[in-house]
Amino acid sequence: MRLALDVLGGDNGAGPNVAGAVLAVNTNPDLTAVLVGDQGQIESLLAAATVPRERVEVVHAPVAVDMKEKPVEALRKKPDASIFRCWQLLAEGAVDGLVSAGNTGAVVAGAAKTRKFLKCVQKPGIATVMPTARGRCIIVDVGANVFPKPRHLLEYGVMGSVFARKILGIEQPKIGLMNVGEEEGKGHELVQKTFDLFRSGPLREQFVGNVEGRDIHRGTVDVIVTDGFTGNVVLKLCEGVFEFVLNLVNQEVVGALDAEKDKGGAALKGLMGRYHYSAFGGAPLLGVDGVCIICHGSSKERAIANALGVAAREVREKVNEAIVAEIGALPADE
Amino acid sequence: MRLALDVLGGDNGAGPNVAGAVLAVNTNPDLTAVLVGDQGQIESLLAAATVPRERVEVVHAPVAVDMKEKPVEALRKKPDASIFRCWQLLAEGAVDGLVSAGNTGAVVAGAAKTRKFLKCVQKPGIATVMPTARGRCIIVDVGANVFPKPRHLLEYGVMGSVFARKILGIEQPKIGLMNVGEEEGKGHELVQKTFDLFRSGPLREQFVGNVEGRDIHRGTVDVIVTDGFTGNVVLKLCEGVFEFVLNLVNQEVVGALDAEKDKGGAALKGLMGRYHYSAFGGAPLLGVDGVCIICHGSSKERAIANALGVAAREVREKVNEAIVAEIGALPADE
Repeated sequence: MRLALDVLGGDNGAGPNVAGAVLAVNTNPDLTAVLVGDQGQIESLLAAATVPRERVEVVHAPVAVDMKEKPVEALRKKPDASIFRCWQLLAEGAVDGLVSAGNTGAVVAGAAKTRKFLKCVQKPGIATVMPTARGRCIIVDVGANVFPKPRHLLEYGVMGSVFARKILGIEQPKIGLMNVGEEEGKGHELVQKTFDLFRSGPLREQFVGNVEGRDIHRGTVDVIVTDGFTGNVVLKLCEGVFEFVLNLVNQEVVGALDAEKDKGGAALKGLMGRYHYSAFGGAPLLGVDGVCIICHGSSKERAIANALGVAAREVREKVNEAIVAEIGALPADE
Repeated sequence: MRLALDVLGGDNGAGPNVAGAVLAVNTNPDLTAVLVGDQGQIESLLAAATVPRERVEVVHAPVAVDMKEKPVEALRKKPDASIFRCWQLLAEGAVDGLVSAGNTGAVVAGAAKTRKFLKCVQKPGIATVMPTARGRCIIVDVGANVFPKPRHLLEYGVMGSVFARKILGIEQPKIGLMNVGEEEGKGHELVQKTFDLFRSGPLREQFVGNVEGRDIHRGTVDVIVTDGFTGNVVLKLCEGVFEFVLNLVNQEVVGALDAEKDKGGAALKGLMGRYHYSAFGGAPLLGVDGVCIICHGSSKERAIANALGVAAREVREKVNEAIVAEIGALPADE
């Protein structure tokens, strides 16, 4: 399979992107990486790498979208920027998927521009995988669709469930609806109507009802459906709380030790590494006709390689075919 | 001043509520606690306590609202339940404020029933104080108003700012609007219109613009304004992440130690105590004509005493007088 990588995306420049692609190509024998960015720069990075060159291609697209740039303006002013070239390659059928650590809004804008969506899906949603006390759970949407309709959330339930089965290996994923209380009837109109859609449709067996913020990390469910506004706040809040708490632990717990300070510090570092976002392979934009994974802007080699690995698995496991079949089995939208 | 305490509220029964009141009365010489619950039970708990009895009164209201009970049904079936009796006392002017660790919905329903709101405030909001890397911040609303209007959020900004000044001691609080990105124009219509209200009104100097989920714990601002849906998810999520991360640290960091395991465990316990919600004195329902503080259902003696202490400070510091003056200075709602 062929996956495009936006080499100019992210805070760290081409180096970690190319290194991540090299790692992914070396660990996925069926993967050809199409590196989209400044050709000269990519070639010189590749010259220093050990990688089967027949599975690494380069597409020259030296213009970058800045992390702070307004997506719609970027699309107008820089239609050939590396991230948009990745989308063009997908639209032309030249690649099966794309990975970018660039401006999230620009990635989503590129999707909207090429209209490369699954026909059955009304609005794509960004999913993110979170660690929990029982394993992992997936939250959809974390920012693509800040004011969704109930039908969109129902489709996020289907897509999240397929992803949980095929990529996270959870046989019968339980789905929860993010709300302000567990009882039926809680929350605003959007969640009340969404609750009814889940309860009356083919997902009723998997749908456990409303869940609350504290359920995410308890691992109460495997898939959490929410609007992109709440989901985006959740995503960034988790990052902030992890940072805050682990800094405190480093200062106050590791800092309180004497002879075993190194041992405690190493254990904390190990924990931070295992629960760092880079271990979870980026955030898939579900509902695209192809595969699209958005990485954190600060992604380094390992995060990029993991994201390419997840994208490759999405292709192998035919995630989209399953999404099309299962959304097709839903009652028609009224 | 006189504060009512809902002795039947919370998961832990009358014991910790009465003990918390005794502690608060002993540390606040100007406080008279009015204990609302089962008179016999309260009297026997008081008999074992050392407290100036002239500053502890008892109101017999032996019916409790269950934590899982639907608020509106509870109000209909049990109009004399302890929490509603607290509101009646406030409405009659018999107390200056009330504290309850009971069913949050019932506390808010009691407020709505007695209509004991500040006239200038369109919708009360629940505030919560969070620890940050730079101190503390306050988030309004965390669950009273899940589908607010922009004007409500503007008023939450005023109320949060007054609380931050008078209770948290922050001289010129910075206000942020919870959103999915920092740039102007981000998010849905509610936040876009709210942004404009802040920018065009008398709070413009204090308003720093949009903030994201990760800004909460970084302490970027002192007051964060958000809708009650997002705020409630944030509040419960923080609780869940703290629990999750600190359990991990206990297992993996403290668990990795040998000779200094006790030292590490004690440091972790100290940190958990300082950042536990009980240290922050409950969540004030702002916009009430009087003082109302909602405590976590699992509150024990210390949390109840802290909440009564904060309620007493709200009365002393004339928080409501300042809210009325500052909302009065806003442009009229269109």
